[in-house]
Amino acid sequence: MSHFTAVILAAGKGTRMKSELPKVMHTLAGRPLIDHVLEKVAKPGINDVITIVGHGREMLWEHLGERTRVVVQEEQLGTGHAVMQVLPLIDEDSSILVLSGDQPLLAGHTLQSLMEIHQKTGSSATVLTAVMENPSGYGRILKEDNVFQGIIEEKDADVLQKGIKEINTGTYCFNGAALKFALQKITPKNAQGEYYLTDVFDILLSYGQKIEIFCTDDPSEALGINNRVQLAEAEDILYDRIRKYWMMEGVTIINPPSVFIDAEVVLGKDVILNPFTMIKGNTRIEEGANIGPSTTLINCVCQKGCQIEHSVARDAVIGENCLVGPYAYLRPGTVLGKEVKVGDFVEIKNSIIEEGTKVPHLSYIGDSRLGKNVNIGAGTITCNYDGENKHQTIIEDRVFVGSNTNFVAPVSIGKEAVIGAGSTITKDVPDQALAIERSQQRIIENWHLSKKK
Amino acid sequence: MSHFTAVILAAGKGTRMKSELPKVMHTLAGRPLIDHVLEKVAKPGINDVITIVGHGREMLWEHLGERTRVVVQEEQLGTGHAVMQVLPLIDEDSSILVLSGDQPLLAGHTLQSLMEIHQKTGSSATVLTAVMENPSGYGRILKEDNVFQGIIEEKDADVLQKGIKEINTGTYCFNGAALKFALQKITPKNAQGEYYLTDVFDILLSYGQKIEIFCTDDPSEALGINNRVQLAEAEDILYDRIRKYWMMEGVTIINPPSVFIDAEVVLGKDVILNPFTMIKGNTRIEEGANIGPSTTLINCVCQKGCQIEHSVARDAVIGENCLVGPYAYLRPGTVLGKEVKVGDFVEIKNSIIEEGTKVPHLSYIGDSRLGKNVNIGAGTITCNYDGENKHQTIIEDRVFVGSNTNFVAPVSIGKEAVIGAGSTITKDVPDQALAIERSQQRIIENWHLSKKK
Amino acid sequence: MSHFTAVILAAGKGTRMKSELPKVMHTLAGRPLIDHVLEKVAKPGINDVITIVGHGREMLWEHLGERTRVVVQEEQLGTGHAVMQVLPLIDEDSSILVLSGDQPLLAGHTLQSLMEIHQKTGSSATVLTAVMENPSGYGRILKEDNVFQGIIEEKDADVLQKGIKEINTGTYCFNGAALKFALQKITPKNAQGEYYLTDVFDILLSYGQKIEIFCTDDPSEALGINNRVQLAEAEDILYDRIRKYWMMEGVTIINPPSVFIDAEVVLGKDVILNPFTMIKGNTRIEEGANIGPSTTLINCVCQKGCQIEHSVARDAVIGENCLVGPYAYLRPGTVLGKEVKVGDFVEIKNSIIEEGTKVPHLSYIGDSRLGKNVNIGAGTITCNYDGENKHQTIIEDRVFVGSNTNFVAPVSIGKEAVIGAGSTITKDVPDQALAIERSQQRIIENWHLSKKK
Repeated sequence: MSHFTAVILAAGKGTRMKSELPKVMHTLAGRPLIDHVLEKVAKPGINDVITIVGHGREMLWEHLGERTRVVVQEEQLGTGHAVMQVLPLIDEDSSILVLSGDQPLLAGHTLQSLMEIHQKTGSSATVLTAVMENPSGYGRILKEDNVFQGIIEEKDADVLQKGIKEINTGTYCFNGAALKFALQKITPKNAQGEYYLTDVFDILLSYGQKIEIFCTDDPSEALGINNRVQLAEAEDILYDRIRKYWMMEGVTIINPPSVFIDAEVVLGKDVILNPFTMIKGNTRIEEGANIGPSTTLINCVCQKGCQIEHSVARDAVIGENCLVGPYAYLRPGTVLGKEVKVGDFVEIKNSIIEEGTKVPHLSYIGDSRLGKNVNIGAGTITCNYDGENKHQTIIEDRVFVGSNTNFVAPVSIGKEAVIGAGSTITKDVPDQALAIERSQQRIIENWHLSKKK
Repeated sequence: MSHFTAVILAAGKGTRMKSELPKVMHTLAGRPLIDHVLEKVAKPGINDVITIVGHGREMLWEHLGERTRVVVQEEQLGTGHAVMQVLPLIDEDSSILVLSGDQPLLAGHTLQSLMEIHQKTGSSATVLTAVMENPSGYGRILKEDNVFQGIIEEKDADVLQKGIKEINTGTYCFNGAALKFALQKITPKNAQGEYYLTDVFDILLSYGQKIEIFCTDDPSEALGINNRVQLAEAEDILYDRIRKYWMMEGVTIINPPSVFIDAEVVLGKDVILNPFTMIKGNTRIEEGANIGPSTTLINCVCQKGCQIEHSVARDAVIGENCLVGPYAYLRPGTVLGKEVKVGDFVEIKNSIIEEGTKVPHLSYIGDSRLGKNVNIGAGTITCNYDGENKHQTIIEDRVFVGSNTNFVAPVSIGKEAVIGAGSTITKDVPDQALAIERSQQRIIENWHLSKKK
Repeated sequence: MSHFTAVILAAGKGTRMKSELPKVMHTLAGRPLIDHVLEKVAKPGINDVITIVGHGREMLWEHLGERTRVVVQEEQLGTGHAVMQVLPLIDEDSSILVLSGDQPLLAGHTLQSLMEIHQKTGSSATVLTAVMENPSGYGRILKEDNVFQGIIEEKDADVLQKGIKEINTGTYCFNGAALKFALQKITPKNAQGEYYLTDVFDILLSYGQKIEIFCTDDPSEALGINNRVQLAEAEDILYDRIRKYWMMEGVTIINPPSVFIDAEVVLGKDVILNPFTMIKGNTRIEEGANIGPSTTLINCVCQKGCQIEHSVARDAVIGENCLVGPYAYLRPGTVLGKEVKVGDFVEIKNSIIEEGTKVPHLSYIGDSRLGKNVNIGAGTITCNYDGENKHQTIIEDRVFVGSNTNFVAPVSIGKEAVIGAGSTITKDVPDQALAIERSQQRIIENWHLSKKK
């Protein structure tokens, strides 16, 4: 394929979003709209991309970084005016793909097909169209003998034209020279002095140029985001696609509409996802794991056969056949070995916990290393922070820790040691020793009655 | 507008609800059906309201309080019989708005329009109608040359009449004198001896009176609640309206169908609501706050930029940029200053926590005042209850509290004091002092082996 | 009715499930598909059931146990070949009901009607059909003058035939002798050498036999599970049926699509189920209980008027008017008496807690018996496990337990005793005594400054 430059229109304010953010920075399934469009442009291998920015340009510029060239449209005088800003950067010999930064559901393979048809037919321009059950609000495609005759905007359409269901998606391929030629001839059309890119087609037709059409099968690709209701609709379509994909790949989802899987997530065969669950970021879940209900995982690795219910985990590794939750909170740096149990009301942070160890309830384990088959009593807390620095707690294999124990780090507990319940441990404990910090239990008889008096 | 009296039919048992509650006391979006109707009646400014009660009258009477006059219908002999009960209270010169207590989706502006048309046309009666895609079950509106000719009930309708899609909503305006006149002429229609209010229309027509129609745009307004499936449907419509309203006002809702926003809630621009979240009562959420997933807020104030995930809060104030959750429980009287962190497995009750203080995990703070930049170790508990009274804990700025500490209230901790881990603090601690309650740590060697023997 | 044998086809691998499990072992609403079919077969009283197994036969065999006879189909050569395997077991005088193991939505009353019509008409075979809005993918029923003429598969149908909306569900009744006769005459039809059971109908017709049709009202009954998208669809239909049933019986469900009720669950009048809630196994919830949001109950009994929010409970009994949650975890063997409060971050396991007792926060109660009106301070833990055995804690009526207390079991606390906060209790405490295990609180002045140096 010859050289293609993609031009992304991203200068609009998106007034109807009623937001401080520029429109294309609103997130869909966790990523800004503009990133969805950039990803799609990369699919057919376009690496020359120009983004036209206007409102919120500093934020967008910073966000885009080195990923695209950026051109500023100082005033927003219409789509035609926007594309005029990039003319100095466009090579007459190359082809130009024009897209909107607010159409995140465009498919990469659709762009690929659009570009191929554009190349093959050698037309001056190729319009991506879609057939809509309810086309209201969109520009309609006028054809005669199946040949493109122009685009009529909704507001200018007569009753018959309004009945046309093939609509303009706003995505086009242009021959570079033809685009330059036609853009110089368009004029502002209304009181605001806006230049419409779609006027280019009438000019090209009037000069006898051929314009092709490629109609996508999936009308949802045309969905543009102009307000947050449309944002939610697009997100729904995107999540639905992902869910269907994974179900067909052998994942059971109980009540799919209440399970959200981000685009980068990887799921194994016979994984079960239960309701009210969000799998985010680049999480990987291996074969046979059972996740949820009411669970949120972000950037986690869940190994084979692990079970996680009513819990939250971020940047954590959960080993094979681990049992986690309900009500566990695994924070970044948590690494659980095989068959570890992390139960209810337990927080783990930046800690390695080896095979077979149990932290069943009401504990905080931070900046620690726990060996194999350790048993941690309820209410155990690693005091990792002294108000200035964080310190490490090391607990060796087969240690038994009584309830409500404090480990004042840095501290090490040797193999098979036992810690008496209610102890605050400030000094290292040798292998196999009992450590205890406790007073005598005193009894004062008849306290109840004396207090009543 | 002339004087209007609203008459609300609320005497029915609602047999198909299969409930101990009278039908109009079932809640929709947190409020009884009758309250929804009363709110709508108040919109066009009617302040003379009569509620006709029957089943569950004591409960309803108490619930209504001073808000409406109440008339008892001893036996439920039909809608006509119900309205007869209020005749002695009705002024012939006033207009009467008759509504059902079980139609919570009526819009205030629809009632306003109905009343205006009734006044303007000076008709004897005006019927609120709606056009239904599927009208089955409703009475159909008979018209000739667009003039009202009567209402035919579903069961009496022939095949052609069943095809009519304009239906009777059961809401009417009447001229007071005309209503009195016609009601005296209706007779019981069936074996049960029921009087139908709709018979009034035939009588008025037979006396040459003019009856007008006002057809609402939104057929969902006609939805009456006769069973709990319909209750759920009405609730779904109501929540959907509220969600769409806030999205158009600049709120992002991830997966709108799983987010529930009560009618009184106020949301700021760029608020983000995540799935599985309920925002209840008169909660106010300010600009840029990020709430959920899996969070329930009741009567809370969430200030700018705060983040709350997997948590429950009631009657609490969450300050700017606070981080709350996962698994925090904020109870009534909680007031968090700016940038406070309340982490996992933490309950706060009736306490003021000032700017920058952290309660990261596994703590209970009740009846307390915490100053600025205090650090509360995991497992810290304020012992606010002695079995008879509640007492206060005061912790001044920059105090550092070690883990598993008990504060036996009343107790005060001075500025920059430090509390050793595992201490039970029963006496006040001066500024900058270390307080500790702990025994010596003892080690008994070879405990593991001795125990095995 | 004469003798019926049910033959269930369950040999297929279910390649499109992409699973290690045989297809009919995938679960729908918590139970394997095959169990749903067996349940439906039991409805009209068939107790002679033969299951034809192939893929995953060991697992299925073990799962079925004594419930059905099992016949192995060594190679999967089509539905006709499958039924051939059971011919030796079939009595010519009996009737045969053939079903697919992957159609879990068949209704018992539909099978009953199918069998009755088959008997009454004395036909050789009776086909269960359904009318589908979108019949694509299914075999269509050919009829002339309303008499069955055969089944045409989708791939063999012409355009007119594809327009037929009455489809073959794959469920049939046969006369035993007729089935034997016809099966011996069918031949493999394609490259894979598969025998199709539907060929039997052409053979029977060609011998002048009469074949009847019974068309079910509910097309969802025909839904077969071939991939996990269909599994989710079937589950959705099933849960929806259950929800509607209970709503019509007097249960309020807030947002029904987010509430999941298993088939065996029993719900009382005026129960309220809030969003994001799963009621599983054989849970029973009594009148007026209020459950959820975000709650999972498995095999629980919830007595009148209890309230449970944001919690998880398994094999637990929750007494009248109990308040549970948010964030409580009730494990097997929990029995709560009347008006018990189990609050936030509390785990209860294998314990009886009597009327009026409160465990408000951050506690673990395991293997214990708590009397009436006991007050358990936050952070209290029963140390029931010594690393080898579990021991019991007994706390009598009206005991007051201070915060962060450890009970080192076995231990007994007498009536009206008081336990000082922060104590580790290792010895029994008599009635009305105060027990305390604590050192002196020491103060070291100017610690803050000395540390800074």
